[in-house]
Amino acid sequence: MTRPVLNIALIGSGFMGRAHALAFAAADRTFDLPLSPRVTVLADRDLPTATAAAALLGIPNASGDWREAIADASIDMVAIATPNLLHAPIAIAALEAGKAVYCEKPLATTIAESEAMTAAAASGRPTAVGFTYLYNPMIALARELIAEGEIGEVTAFRGIHAEDFMASADAPFNWRCEPDQAGGALADIGSHIIAMAKHLVGDIASVSGRLYTAYPVRRDAQGNDRAVTVDDQMDAVVAFANGATGTLAASWIASGRKMGLAFEISGTKGSISFTQEQFNELKLYRSGPGRTNGFTTICAGPEHGDYGAFCPASGHQIGYNDLKTIEVKAAVEAAAGLPSAAKSFADALAVEKVADAIRRSHREGGWVRP
Amino acid sequence: MTRPVLNIALIGSGFMGRAHALAFAAADRTFDLPLSPRVTVLADRDLPTATAAAALLGIPNASGDWREAIADASIDMVAIATPNLLHAPIAIAALEAGKAVYCEKPLATTIAESEAMTAAAASGRPTAVGFTYLYNPMIALARELIAEGEIGEVTAFRGIHAEDFMASADAPFNWRCEPDQAGGALADIGSHIIAMAKHLVGDIASVSGRLYTAYPVRRDAQGNDRAVTVDDQMDAVVAFANGATGTLAASWIASGRKMGLAFEISGTKGSISFTQEQFNELKLYRSGPGRTNGFTTICAGPEHGDYGAFCPASGHQIGYNDLKTIEVKAAVEAAAGLPSAAKSFADALAVEKVADAIRRSHREGGWVRP
Amino acid sequence: MTRPVLNIALIGSGFMGRAHALAFAAADRTFDLPLSPRVTVLADRDLPTATAAAALLGIPNASGDWREAIADASIDMVAIATPNLLHAPIAIAALEAGKAVYCEKPLATTIAESEAMTAAAASGRPTAVGFTYLYNPMIALARELIAEGEIGEVTAFRGIHAEDFMASADAPFNWRCEPDQAGGALADIGSHIIAMAKHLVGDIASVSGRLYTAYPVRRDAQGNDRAVTVDDQMDAVVAFANGATGTLAASWIASGRKMGLAFEISGTKGSISFTQEQFNELKLYRSGPGRTNGFTTICAGPEHGDYGAFCPASGHQIGYNDLKTIEVKAAVEAAAGLPSAAKSFADALAVEKVADAIRRSHREGGWVRP
Amino acid sequence: MTRPVLNIALIGSGFMGRAHALAFAAADRTFDLPLSPRVTVLADRDLPTATAAAALLGIPNASGDWREAIADASIDMVAIATPNLLHAPIAIAALEAGKAVYCEKPLATTIAESEAMTAAAASGRPTAVGFTYLYNPMIALARELIAEGEIGEVTAFRGIHAEDFMASADAPFNWRCEPDQAGGALADIGSHIIAMAKHLVGDIASVSGRLYTAYPVRRDAQGNDRAVTVDDQMDAVVAFANGATGTLAASWIASGRKMGLAFEISGTKGSISFTQEQFNELKLYRSGPGRTNGFTTICAGPEHGDYGAFCPASGHQIGYNDLKTIEVKAAVEAAAGLPSAAKSFADALAVEKVADAIRRSHREGGWVRP
Repeated sequence: MTRPVLNIALIGSGFMGRAHALAFAAADRTFDLPLSPRVTVLADRDLPTATAAAALLGIPNASGDWREAIADASIDMVAIATPNLLHAPIAIAALEAGKAVYCEKPLATTIAESEAMTAAAASGRPTAVGFTYLYNPMIALARELIAEGEIGEVTAFRGIHAEDFMASADAPFNWRCEPDQAGGALADIGSHIIAMAKHLVGDIASVSGRLYTAYPVRRDAQGNDRAVTVDDQMDAVVAFANGATGTLAASWIASGRKMGLAFEISGTKGSISFTQEQFNELKLYRSGPGRTNGFTTICAGPEHGDYGAFCPASGHQIGYNDLKTIEVKAAVEAAAGLPSAAKSFADALAVEKVADAIRRSHREGGWVRP
Repeated sequence: MTRPVLNIALIGSGFMGRAHALAFAAADRTFDLPLSPRVTVLADRDLPTATAAAALLGIPNASGDWREAIADASIDMVAIATPNLLHAPIAIAALEAGKAVYCEKPLATTIAESEAMTAAAASGRPTAVGFTYLYNPMIALARELIAEGEIGEVTAFRGIHAEDFMASADAPFNWRCEPDQAGGALADIGSHIIAMAKHLVGDIASVSGRLYTAYPVRRDAQGNDRAVTVDDQMDAVVAFANGATGTLAASWIASGRKMGLAFEISGTKGSISFTQEQFNELKLYRSGPGRTNGFTTICAGPEHGDYGAFCPASGHQIGYNDLKTIEVKAAVEAAAGLPSAAKSFADALAVEKVADAIRRSHREGGWVRP
Repeated sequence: MTRPVLNIALIGSGFMGRAHALAFAAADRTFDLPLSPRVTVLADRDLPTATAAAALLGIPNASGDWREAIADASIDMVAIATPNLLHAPIAIAALEAGKAVYCEKPLATTIAESEAMTAAAASGRPTAVGFTYLYNPMIALARELIAEGEIGEVTAFRGIHAEDFMASADAPFNWRCEPDQAGGALADIGSHIIAMAKHLVGDIASVSGRLYTAYPVRRDAQGNDRAVTVDDQMDAVVAFANGATGTLAASWIASGRKMGLAFEISGTKGSISFTQEQFNELKLYRSGPGRTNGFTTICAGPEHGDYGAFCPASGHQIGYNDLKTIEVKAAVEAAAGLPSAAKSFADALAVEKVADAIRRSHREGGWVRP
Repeated sequence: MTRPVLNIALIGSGFMGRAHALAFAAADRTFDLPLSPRVTVLADRDLPTATAAAALLGIPNASGDWREAIADASIDMVAIATPNLLHAPIAIAALEAGKAVYCEKPLATTIAESEAMTAAAASGRPTAVGFTYLYNPMIALARELIAEGEIGEVTAFRGIHAEDFMASADAPFNWRCEPDQAGGALADIGSHIIAMAKHLVGDIASVSGRLYTAYPVRRDAQGNDRAVTVDDQMDAVVAFANGATGTLAASWIASGRKMGLAFEISGTKGSISFTQEQFNELKLYRSGPGRTNGFTTICAGPEHGDYGAFCPASGHQIGYNDLKTIEVKAAVEAAAGLPSAAKSFADALAVEKVADAIRRSHREGGWVRP
């Protein structure tokens, strides 16, 4: 209780802003953090919106101008949960003001913006980006197992992020369909599976991909037919720096899949299989002679990553919001200047360069290096 | 934010006390509750213990005497997370002091105590008992489907609560092995599957059961061999009031099961299958002609119970602590005098009477009515 | 090709008779049997029926009288696939004539008949009974693992045989509903799960069970309403001779279950889980410290039982008819006087005594010894 | 029994030759075929080998020269189960001799050979190729569902054929590693998933793929280190003629996968998911509003394809050899000049052209048309 406080300005109060507010509160109670996170101001596009949301979320101050919040000398970290177009200006301003920055993914809407943000962070101010699914204790286990050679040399990573919220012809044209807002399945959700591949297997050297738009026209909320220029799904072959190959896919028209972030990693001595649809499990195969080989379904428990902070008993399961809480822990640790599992702006930029390479490969028709 | 406050005295600061504190905080942020729950005092067996825990959990006051906390006129509800032996005296004192009471399961260590507690609640003060697993949105869905006749008349309920934390001969003798502390697998975890059966199918008219103790002697933490007189597992045939039959089982020596609260309900027109090990799913079979019949795996989403309060998108999954948060919501609603999904002391007494009947059946050797 | 021939009279040409004929032919090609099985005569209730079926199945001779077939001195083994009522007279006559006998389950329609059949086999003539599911290579593996102590001491067996072919109110009254033809779910399919429990865990010392009839009246094919006096489902608690407990259930009204012969065996050091719905798999849990424990899904392969006779590669899967082929192999080996996995009449009688004890328990209301 | 006979010369008596012999016998008993298949001669590389195998398989004649068998005027169909190098000369000679030809996959070892074989079949003689997995009743169901629009327009096919028989560094260099014997994972098993994609979704317009060799050197049975020039795994992005995209992969180093022929097909109104590891099941998702949507696990039964010929009851499961029996049925129907599900030489050539395009894409680095 005598821990120093980390004063946070939260920018944005939509679904993700609320998730941030809840996660900061939960992280403070769940973990023994080096700094006690305190969201002291909520900024949104206008003061009434910000004030109402702040009241609901128990945040003491509100602002209709994010610049004001950043200018506040008491603020240590800026958390960005705005529309994607605003990520870059806010983040750069915050970094220039000497704040730590915790930004939702995608980092920005163009590679140029992401590079500018990463350059701004080169000053050394801590950054963190919200790749929530990487913070899963079972993904931590997967990473450990691979690092320790339990599955031998990795030979393949085949992964997908599949959802179906745009599968219907009736799904309306919305901001996710705008190319200049980082729209499209590849940018919106494909970044998760790219980040996962890099997190677990390493750098991607080359990609050959293809985009597909199932519905070239969608109707917007105003009843206007709008041309869709972004992808509904993406498929790519990838070559990792270590020579292994595999596939990456992303789709928001994968009927029936609600959170289908799934992969299988093959190695010379074993394999790992995972789906976010049952994210408290990891399946592990270890090669060897004998009549009892097979994939073992490992059930999340306190022996895995940060699970124990939520529950002392195996099998009880953590939820999506708990993953966000672990992510916030990493962001706070980064802000405190400590070693942290947080993904930095540079990490996020590397992910977006892969996505961009897939996009270029689609246009140009062959292998492209990120 | 102008909602009236529900002042709570929390008694007990172990694992379950902490879970309560976190759940009250989370419920207040997650739901639009009729009263804003505020844990204002934490009582434990002595002041230093209580003070330390209160500091950790952000509770403003601490007390070394639960009687003092109950005597405080500002307190509206007493939350009991103590060892089982203390449930009855605290709950009865709190009810007599006019407080609402929210008590962990099991209600008490004997039927007589549970009856006394239920009698004390007859005054009309709201009560709630922590049958966490009943608050799962997918269980809410199961209940709706059954009530609406989607699976026809229920013909069978076969369920188990299986864990393995006592499966090893080396698992030490602890308080859970003490019969006068509601020890044994039947009392400790069997109550969950009994409560589930009653929640979904209705009253149990008769039982024939058998207890089994795999390890008649266990060593305690002090290195002494202690005779074990409680059950390691229980198996029973049950007859429901509506004539349907089935089985109930409980085991804490079910090697490999970490949270194996599982059941299948058969009906004349369909079936429902569930396991807490994947509790964001429910499997539903609907009878009918055709080549595409089968069990459908329904993935939890905002269309199910309280899921949407945690996440607006399907498939992201809620965790165990979120179930506790929903349970707290019900307790707060009950305390506000509103219709609520909370299970009352009377409900919990009915569950314990079934457990007691199984125990008597084991001793007496035949069918016993709860 | 110079192996001696085993001349077989097959009695009955319905579904099961055809399955026998196919299995004898397949076994001869699949295995290196000590005797080459040759079905030389098919007997059925009248000559035209027998002649037509023999032609279809490639059997050289036909008879309208099973007594004639048995009287034939060239016949070495009689295979019985008739309605259950005829099992006893045919089997006894065949044994008295010195033939080996291979009989479908259930052995007979009453305990008295089964005892008479078993007595007739006491002469030493080989007998075999068709408990097809016991011949699964994965069940052979389960038995080995248990025998070798891989899961420690068995503490529980919980099993069910669930199907749904009578789940609808419209399912007609047929011979399976006739009590004097071994009708009812317990007799018809419950025998499989009882046989499995005995095969894997050992003798059952005592049972307490309950029968349930969902539809007291069903309409027969002639449109007449008929009173149903047999059970639609059965549930029982069992105590094994070794002290372990568990549950057994059988149901032909378990909506959605097509071949739901499933069980979980818990032991002090591990567990085994199985369902016939995926019968080329066995799930094994071995206790132990560490972060990678869990149930391992073992995929059937040539290292398991007789799988390799069908396919040299793992994972390709064998089918129901292949199980029947393995069963026939055991029957032929028994007929040759060799050690064999075949279940004898005495084994089948022991199974039926358990079923009978459950029936008596239902009537009498308590624990009954088989 | 008065059906005309189809006299067959079987060439090759290894694993696959034996599988053919068993499947012809089984098909004759299982189905009501237009012609009764009779393997009258078995040819192999020398007379002693052929004679021994013929004796074991119950085939009346043997030959040490396949040309002799083809020259026999009584032969109606030639079944080819030899090493891949011999497929072309035997098939072409047989077609020229006016025989129907049933050939194992791959059709040949080069596109040129396959084209020559297909040209030889242009005379109109019936041909059939052994793509066993396409004959699965659940694949028949998938095809029906797609054709009837149950999942809307297909937007993606993502599939893999993964096994692990070469995953170990110790797996020896064998004929499968020889490029001139159609070696490599793509040729050996990748053809199955390509055939499946074409069978269910249609023509593949373009591919971009990559091969990977995990072990550039393997030791052969004689202890010599041999350079491996074929692929251990293949990954490709594909564009279908209808515009949909997806991925194809093949691997024989996919540790833990024994028969991992798996795919998911997404459509605008639903999805289908399948794995050969549980090939008696198909998972179907149909879009629509409501709280009970999800993937339905359909269990194979007599309402699906040819399942009912093997078993009249759902859920009992057919095995790999039964799939082969259905394949033989199609070959016999083709040989009889009837409409048939058999895949012709032209179909097999089209599959191999896709594989060849992937190989060229790997070399050339971009998109290639088959």
